Amino acid sequence: MTKQRLSKKFWNPYLNKLSPYTPGEQPTMSNYIKLNTNENPLGPSTHVKNAILKVLKTNGTELRLYPEPESQSLKKVISQHYKVNNNQIFVGNGSDEVLAFCFQALLANRGNLAIPEITYSFYPSLAKLFAININLIKLSNDFSFNLNNLNSNVSSVLFANPNATTGISLNKIQIQQFLTKNPQILVIVDEAYVDFGAQSCISLIKKYKNILITRTFSKSRGLAGMRLGFAVGNHDLIHALNLVKNSFNTYPVDKLASAAGIASLKDKKWFDSNKQKIIRNREFLTRKLKTIGFEVLPSQANFILASHLKVSGTKIFSELKKNKIIVRHFNNPKIKNWVRISIGTKVQCEKLLKVLKSFII
Amino acid sequence: MTKQRLSKKFWNPYLNKLSPYTPGEQPTMSNYIKLNTNENPLGPSTHVKNAILKVLKTNGTELRLYPEPESQSLKKVISQHYKVNNNQIFVGNGSDEVLAFCFQALLANRGNLAIPEITYSFYPSLAKLFAININLIKLSNDFSFNLNNLNSNVSSVLFANPNATTGISLNKIQIQQFLTKNPQILVIVDEAYVDFGAQSCISLIKKYKNILITRTFSKSRGLAGMRLGFAVGNHDLIHALNLVKNSFNTYPVDKLASAAGIASLKDKKWFDSNKQKIIRNREFLTRKLKTIGFEVLPSQANFILASHLKVSGTKIFSELKKNKIIVRHFNNPKIKNWVRISIGTKVQCEKLLKVLKSFII
Repeated sequence: MTKQRLSKKFWNPYLNKLSPYTPGEQPTMSNYIKLNTNENPLGPSTHVKNAILKVLKTNGTELRLYPEPESQSLKKVISQHYKVNNNQIFVGNGSDEVLAFCFQALLANRGNLAIPEITYSFYPSLAKLFAININLIKLSNDFSFNLNNLNSNVSSVLFANPNATTGISLNKIQIQQFLTKNPQILVIVDEAYVDFGAQSCISLIKKYKNILITRTFSKSRGLAGMRLGFAVGNHDLIHALNLVKNSFNTYPVDKLASAAGIASLKDKKWFDSNKQKIIRNREFLTRKLKTIGFEVLPSQANFILASHLKVSGTKIFSELKKNKIIVRHFNNPKIKNWVRISIGTKVQCEKLLKVLKSFII
Repeated sequence: MTKQRLSKKFWNPYLNKLSPYTPGEQPTMSNYIKLNTNENPLGPSTHVKNAILKVLKTNGTELRLYPEPESQSLKKVISQHYKVNNNQIFVGNGSDEVLAFCFQALLANRGNLAIPEITYSFYPSLAKLFAININLIKLSNDFSFNLNNLNSNVSSVLFANPNATTGISLNKIQIQQFLTKNPQILVIVDEAYVDFGAQSCISLIKKYKNILITRTFSKSRGLAGMRLGFAVGNHDLIHALNLVKNSFNTYPVDKLASAAGIASLKDKKWFDSNKQKIIRNREFLTRKLKTIGFEVLPSQANFILASHLKVSGTKIFSELKKNKIIVRHFNNPKIKNWVRISIGTKVQCEKLLKVLKSFII
């Protein structure tokens, strides 16, 4: 990028107020061990490749046609998989886009939104974009939060479960109690990491009209490169998302992403085995880190948040990077002494431990 | 969809004002001749398939990683192809998404937007979404429009060139004169169809800071199924688009779409040949339609707008559909007697003519 001064002559003046999200870096060199963006270390089901090849038969001619505007084929498979109706599903270009549509359709112009003090840092970027006021839910010393600690002037709540950055999750029953007590509050649960051990709230959408769940294919299904996510909720919430989507971008899900999603959902055997491997590696890494002086939060995600008694988060981050291992370090003062480590393969976990020991012990 | 009444309890109240876009239908039966959404009849370069297969080698494991957030690799190839700088390019999920970001970043909160009376009907949907007031530019009897006929209270102008629905284009010199005379007005030119014979304005971005051009891979590159589009303009306009994109959806372009775009741009031989075939078919179809009593607008796009002296647009549309040929018919009173026909293969054009003759002559 050149360092020319920007002319804002044709800018929407509101752009000056934005605080765009900064994603974890994507190094172009492949000799890095990349444990910074919670990608799946093992890659997707091999059925995905086969499904894409099938679309590409006859020289890719099929790509000349627009995809299904409403992603009906993918919705059908999602609805069977999660035992919900077609009109209770919304599909988008990654759960980031699905969340963006949620902000525009269900959170904007509806009062204050509560989010945990520490969570996915994309939420505040979206809130700025749609001029939504945020109330932060305080975390306890153990980094958990309690939904009963909300301010009274809140119209909506959004959190990741397990929570982003910490990996700590709420139980379904805690969420259900909140829904029952607060029928006037819309609750959006971002279940990006739920498959690694937490309880999903999808079944609650049948009883409660004040809950919407977002999901991604990027983590437990190893398809971050394909951009695919969805939301599940009562049909009137889904209808609102469709209204915005069809006013913004009619076909966000391309033909290959749709085929990839369908193939992934149908390969239950791969899914269960992949998930178990990551959970095992997480437990292995957590145990080993504790033996060398780390505090590790109890994670139900495919990452852990860890802090060392004697070495700062900044130092751990930079020493690892020197050794070609990238983890995530956040500027947030509350977690500046922590690093977030995505769960890699067993070999990657062992390499990480070896490098950590080289400068910690 | 169930016919249940919608509860709008959790809706952004503004949603009631939206007018979502209705895309042309995508029939699921493959025995239709589909001439309704201006897709490329011949499909993309075969290099596209090979590029996707390359990403998928080693069982698609590469898909586990997020794509480049700023689509650097694709931008590099676009910049070489169009002789512009990297920071003069913005890439998105189809030109629809690119246009949506333009509306949010450069048109919203900036006064009135002028669009032609007849044009891509997605623009008014976007304008509603971002609460932008529209001024319509009147079309002449020959369906052309003159930029000098704008109201004086306009801050921005947006049109497709060639124009959507009509296929008629403005010359680059007409646009350049407008840019020179009106440095306070931002001009967005949607060049979705420009490759089929009109003049591109991309070279003007070096001299003029008040023009932004949007492009798609869906038409002349036969990649509608992949969702890929881009914008070219001065870097301060592009910066505004990035601010919104990074507040809305960090990675809209997936790994396979990026690879497809790069491969397509590199295959100049295929591109030129494909374009020439479609132009030849357009001229053939136009000539033949005129011999059976059609008026056909002078199109420089991959579609034509045609009207018959004796048979109504509605009847032509429905008779063709009975015969498994789908064209597009619009409710707009000004063109209700016209049908828009995408240019298909020579065989499809001949089939269309045969069916038309069966009920017209």
